[in-house]
Parts: sequence; structure tokens; C-alpha cells
Amino acid sequence: MKTVPHRTVGRFTLYWHILKDLEQEQTHVYSHFLASKARLTAAQVRRDLMVLGYSGTPARGYDVRKLLDHIEAFLFPSTEQRIAIAGVGNIGRALLKFFAGRQPMLRIAASFEVNPEKYDRMVLGCPCYSIDNAGSVIRELGITVGIIAVPDKEAQFVANLFVAAGIKGIINFARTPLQAPPDVYVEDIDLARSMDKVAYFARQSLKSDSMMISKESHK
Amino acid sequence: MKTVPHRTVGRFTLYWHILKDLEQEQTHVYSHFLASKARLTAAQVRRDLMVLGYSGTPARGYDVRKLLDHIEAFLFPSTEQRIAIAGVGNIGRALLKFFAGRQPMLRIAASFEVNPEKYDRMVLGCPCYSIDNAGSVIRELGITVGIIAVPDKEAQFVANLFVAAGIKGIINFARTPLQAPPDVYVEDIDLARSMDKVAYFARQSLKSDSMMISKESHK
Repeated sequence: MKTVPHRTVGRFTLYWHILKDLEQEQTHVYSHFLASKARLTAAQVRRDLMVLGYSGTPARGYDVRKLLDHIEAFLFPSTEQRIAIAGVGNIGRALLKFFAGRQPMLRIAASFEVNPEKYDRMVLGCPCYSIDNAGSVIRELGITVGIIAVPDKEAQFVANLFVAAGIKGIINFARTPLQAPPDVYVEDIDLARSMDKVAYFARQSLKSDSMMISKESHK
Repeated sequence: MKTVPHRTVGRFTLYWHILKDLEQEQTHVYSHFLASKARLTAAQVRRDLMVLGYSGTPARGYDVRKLLDHIEAFLFPSTEQRIAIAGVGNIGRALLKFFAGRQPMLRIAASFEVNPEKYDRMVLGCPCYSIDNAGSVIRELGITVGIIAVPDKEAQFVANLFVAAGIKGIINFARTPLQAPPDVYVEDIDLARSMDKVAYFARQSLKSDSMMISKESHK
């Protein structure tokens, strides 16, 4: 199968989620219904689903269960894939709880900390190791995905440890844009940036409201 | 000032963060230095900063403090802007801690819950109200930004409450794509989608590694 763009893979996880909800209620679904639920066009949905090599029929649309099977075969690992998380502060702990048992084949198998009060024990059901042992733990457990939830200044250091130990995908919650080799996929989740953006656009929206009101009052 | 694209606003918060670190060490900075820190091109950085109506000099680059002032005037509210958060589960609580005092002019002023054991008391320093009172609390406190950290099935219901009460910007942590009017800016942060994507690309990267190795061994 040829390389699938990042955004397409993102949409597959969205379709999967929508279809899981639908599965209880109906056996078939049309592309335009999926599209409206996903806030996309029906053409986009059909183009994406063609990547899976599965197509529906004009009369009944897609078979929900078959479509789920195809998406799952594409998207989910067939054997357990292991994840490590660096940093078990507020965000790290929330993620440990959030991802626990969400997807059986994706398991957070280790966490790492610099703080000796936190490591060498279980944290929320997950073993926590000293960051000094990250390399050997990652290699021993065959971990391929790393989550970075450490303070900004330590993020690149942790990313380097992860990459050196063979990790190929990183979710980065630090604000530091990471340097990583091209064969390592990095997804940044910058909560502060999202907040600044949303707050900015909320103010702009209020300003244009009040300009419209003042124009009205001058009529 | 004309409308600034979402991505540009996102980059301003990144520049701000990089410049805050730099401020301790140097008084001036060149666009190509900022670009390398932000993993962008120097041309992109210069184009963005022109939006602020501030330019550096070819000899010394940008004055770090002046550039910070311009970004802050653009990006940050001049009077307190208030935020509400719906849902004080794992993610909600982590966000309450993460955003507390991060930016003095952006304050989480209220949280909402359906669970009577959680509301009508302080949660992590923030008053928590019944979701039934969301409309009146949001209007009374003049809240303009809402964070949705409730289960997926309740997300649209909460978004409707937020919009009806006058909220103009939403950060959505639920997987449900929200329906909202065009004057309300919605930023989705879908942790499960990010995880599925990163895990997928990590597997693809390992597959192409092992294909290269098997090709090598056949030489």
C-alpha cells in the first residue's frame, strides 16, 4: 500500500469513531451521512474510503460492520504496540488515565521521570522508571511510540533519548518544536498555543459584533 | 487590522514562547535564528512579523523586547478574558492545573459539571457549578471562551449551551465534530486521533526499516 497522507489517517480515526456509534443503530450508511457527521464533503469521504479498497453500493451505501473491519485493519496494530510516556505530572497522569484500556492493542507500557520520589514504583497502574534507564527499558519492551509530557526545557533531551532507543512516533506536549530525523513522526499538541488562538479569535468575534451593533445604532 | 489567518496567530504564540526564552540571553535576534528555533523558513517569519507592523534592521535583526511587546499587544487581551471549562474529569482537572496562572489575563473563572458530588464547591481553586446554571454564570461573569472536556455524547449539548450564552471560542477535547455558528471559533484537540495517527506512522516507519534491512541481506 502506498504512503497515505497524515490527514487521511486522521480522518480514518474520526470515521471509525462515528461508525462505532452508528453500529448500534443501523447496518448501512451513505457517504453523505458520514460526511455530515464528520463535517466533511461526501466526495472527500468516498475518496478516503477508496484508499481502503472497499466501496459501498449506490443502493444501500456502505456496510457499517465491513467498513469498520477495513478501517480497523488499516488503522489498528494487529499485535500489541507499546507506548512510553515521559513525565507523570498533571498532563502525563491525565494521559495515563485517558489512554488506559482505550485501545487494547495500544498500551502505555512504561513511564519515565527525573524525580526519584516518582520513579521505581507504579504510577496509575503503569511502571515508572528513572529517565536514566529510558534507553534500555524502551529497547527491552520494544516500545515504538513516545509521549513527551515533561517541562519545555527537557523536551529535546527526552526526544533524543526516545529516538536513540528506536522510537518512531512522538506526541509532544511541550512547546518546544522538536528536532527529529525524518523517519520519526512527531505530532505536537500545544495546549497553550490553542488557548491563545481561541482566546484571540473570540475577542475578534466580539469586536466585529460590537462594530455591527454600533453601525446599527447609527442608522 | 485585517483578518489574520488562524495559522499565523498560532505561529505568533510560538514566536512569543521562543523570544521569552531568548530574552534572558540576548537583546537582538535575526529572522533566520527565530526560523530555525521554530522549524520554519526565515521568509515565513519575516512575513508573519510584518503583520505586526514591526520590522528589524538588517544589521542587528529584531529587538527582542520590542518584538515581544508587539506580539503581546497583538496576542494577549488587555483586560482579563474569562474562560469556562465543562467537565472536571481527568482531562478537565489537568487543564485547570495547566492553565492556572499561566497567562494572567486569561483566567478560568468557572467550571461546570453534571455530577452533584462535584459541583457547588471549589475544584482546584476554581468554582464548579451545575451545568444547569451554565448560561447564567457565563453571562454574569462575561465568559467568552469555553473548554469542552465532557464525554463525547454530551459535547454538542455543552457546545449549544456555550454558544447560546455568548461564548465565541471553544476548545473541544471530545471526539465529536461540533456544529457551531461561523462567528464561533472551534479548535479540536483529539487525543485519541493523535495517538492513532502517531502509532500508525511509527509502524509504517518500522516496516520500511525492516524492508530496507531485508533488501540489504539479499545483496
